[in-house]
Amino acid sequence: MRFDQERARRIMSQQGIDALVATSPDNVTYLSGYWAMSHWARPGGPQAYAVLPAAGATPCLIAGSGNLDHVVDGESAYSEAYRYGFFATQTDGPALSAQEAQYAKLLVDKDFGDPAEALLAALRDRKLERSRIAIEDTGIVPAIVERVKKELPHAEIVSGGRLLRALRTIKTPEEVERLRGAVRATERGIVAALKIARPGMAERELRMEFDRTVITEGGIPVSSMCIGGGAHSAMSNCQAGERKLVAGEVIRFDGGVRYKWYRSDIARIGALGEPGERIRSYYGALREGAERGIAAIKPGVRTAEIFRIAMETVRKVIPHYQRSHVGHGIGINNYDAPDLAPQSDDVFEEGMVVCVETPYYELGWAGLQLENTVVVRANGAELLTTLDNELRIQKA
Amino acid sequence: MRFDQERARRIMSQQGIDALVATSPDNVTYLSGYWAMSHWARPGGPQAYAVLPAAGATPCLIAGSGNLDHVVDGESAYSEAYRYGFFATQTDGPALSAQEAQYAKLLVDKDFGDPAEALLAALRDRKLERSRIAIEDTGIVPAIVERVKKELPHAEIVSGGRLLRALRTIKTPEEVERLRGAVRATERGIVAALKIARPGMAERELRMEFDRTVITEGGIPVSSMCIGGGAHSAMSNCQAGERKLVAGEVIRFDGGVRYKWYRSDIARIGALGEPGERIRSYYGALREGAERGIAAIKPGVRTAEIFRIAMETVRKVIPHYQRSHVGHGIGINNYDAPDLAPQSDDVFEEGMVVCVETPYYELGWAGLQLENTVVVRANGAELLTTLDNELRIQKA
Repeated sequence: MRFDQERARRIMSQQGIDALVATSPDNVTYLSGYWAMSHWARPGGPQAYAVLPAAGATPCLIAGSGNLDHVVDGESAYSEAYRYGFFATQTDGPALSAQEAQYAKLLVDKDFGDPAEALLAALRDRKLERSRIAIEDTGIVPAIVERVKKELPHAEIVSGGRLLRALRTIKTPEEVERLRGAVRATERGIVAALKIARPGMAERELRMEFDRTVITEGGIPVSSMCIGGGAHSAMSNCQAGERKLVAGEVIRFDGGVRYKWYRSDIARIGALGEPGERIRSYYGALREGAERGIAAIKPGVRTAEIFRIAMETVRKVIPHYQRSHVGHGIGINNYDAPDLAPQSDDVFEEGMVVCVETPYYELGWAGLQLENTVVVRANGAELLTTLDNELRIQKA
Repeated sequence: MRFDQERARRIMSQQGIDALVATSPDNVTYLSGYWAMSHWARPGGPQAYAVLPAAGATPCLIAGSGNLDHVVDGESAYSEAYRYGFFATQTDGPALSAQEAQYAKLLVDKDFGDPAEALLAALRDRKLERSRIAIEDTGIVPAIVERVKKELPHAEIVSGGRLLRALRTIKTPEEVERLRGAVRATERGIVAALKIARPGMAERELRMEFDRTVITEGGIPVSSMCIGGGAHSAMSNCQAGERKLVAGEVIRFDGGVRYKWYRSDIARIGALGEPGERIRSYYGALREGAERGIAAIKPGVRTAEIFRIAMETVRKVIPHYQRSHVGHGIGINNYDAPDLAPQSDDVFEEGMVVCVETPYYELGWAGLQLENTVVVRANGAELLTTLDNELRIQKA
């Protein structure tokens, strides 16, 4: 299992929390392995929750009846489910597999009618009426939280988002491998896209080549990928469109993909031929800032220290360089803890995975950036990115 | 512009609403054309709102400073923005384009610090302190709604989700063309995937071919695509995985893509060689149900009537056939109004776009389904789907 349930229960116990209820797509999948198509595809759509009680009680899911197939056909580590709503599937066939029989049983189990009733039943069955229950706010309809508070007046309901973020911070080996896969698919996409880049080609064609390559590598393209050439690269979220590439200009690649639910976020700069002295000088400074930052990462070091090192290094060449952060954690969510920011109190721990970046945007000129992803190991940072940090010149 | 602002303001006026505030990714983009990468990519992430006041006042956006480039670089129909938060971009270059200069101005305009302050300023600048303001609940942090209520005690804050759903129901010609593009990309994906299908091939390979084809057609793959063979096709949300295809079995394709933000949802059944009599008979019944349903669509007809016709038709061959609905509207959201359901009071109107579907799932055997998308025209339904409704036999 990719999730470390023992560690989660230890931390819950330290915080006096008797049950944790995940409600957002990311966190439900993180906690339970359960992924429901419509939960992910329709924000604000059907409710789905994962309930992890403290040691002793069985974890369970709350799911719409139309999403029960995902309990048996997918990666769910939880097999108990409380269902709500009508969904028609013919279940009386003569020869069901064990998996189909389990699904059939879920389909004919009691229909709780709505997600609030299903959640209440799950909590009551686990004797949590007088417990401290942490419910993530993000993915649950607020009226359902109010209903739980009303129906379980002796329970203490607290907000669970912060605990989930804390749990997600330290990655298991399986999570690191998925993050590595996401980085690999992204790197191959960048290399493939830059390889076909020519003056006169629309940026959009690079994005298509990137996306197709990512898919072949087992990844899933997501919105958060920026590809832009020349002055367009200075727009921080540049989306590849009809703009045509020009000889000599840079092409900024920043962002990532999803791979087995885990995310990537890396950046590289390409150039269509020699980009000139100022680009090289500025990029060199940004590169050195990011590299020195990574070199200083190890358990026990404050993340704010990496910010200080990276900023000081870059400012030797770009004195006006400004940033609010030089990186962030990454996992099933694109912005996990810790933040590599000046006001952060976070300290590096073994098993964290972070992206370290030093982007610089100058309107009318260019956006330059290097972003790498590392796992924090006992003796320092291990790179998940495998591409070198050079400006990547593509002959124009 | 793809959004019909005049119609929206007419309906707002009928309902006595002085301003509409969209907060979820779908609805912000629907109302304003503004699309912010991190708003779409990070559910529960940065807040972004679109404010449409009744006639007379200027619409505007509320956006994080790091998402202001999307105001000038994209499809935003709103050019005014109230920003919050720090974001560093060098803006003093010598030769900015008009677009860059507009972005630079947004970046140096007042920073309102947080989204609540920015929203309050936008509402006050539009003299809405004593007005009826409809705020969509889904995408806004509840505490921000509370703050607006507290700071504008003489305003009446009502829920805006229902109004937005009502607005989205009727599509403009530009929206229909985008929906047509989404259907086209999906159809080509299905044809391409089925073409490479062979016994022994993993379902996953079909999904990859589908996704690559969709990208080449200008679409974006989304989670809501099901591809499954044989008994796996009876799992309603079957996700293409490592399962190997077998000669003679059906392959169910159901779902869609995103194309210029608009969605598709269609279904076709393929088969790896002759699938046998029961499959043909059941599929024929489902097909006839879906076809008769579509034939009965025209303005003024109740959507519940389509449900009745489709169900009655299918039940002549499959007497135990059960469904909660036989279709739904589609647009920038995958589940727009109307619902084609027995308890629905919806009535077809010109300009609605609906998916009509008759899926049947039998565990241990197969899932069969036909789903088409139509625009409601004055004289009946116009198909957006162009593939015929036959079982699509691929030689095994």
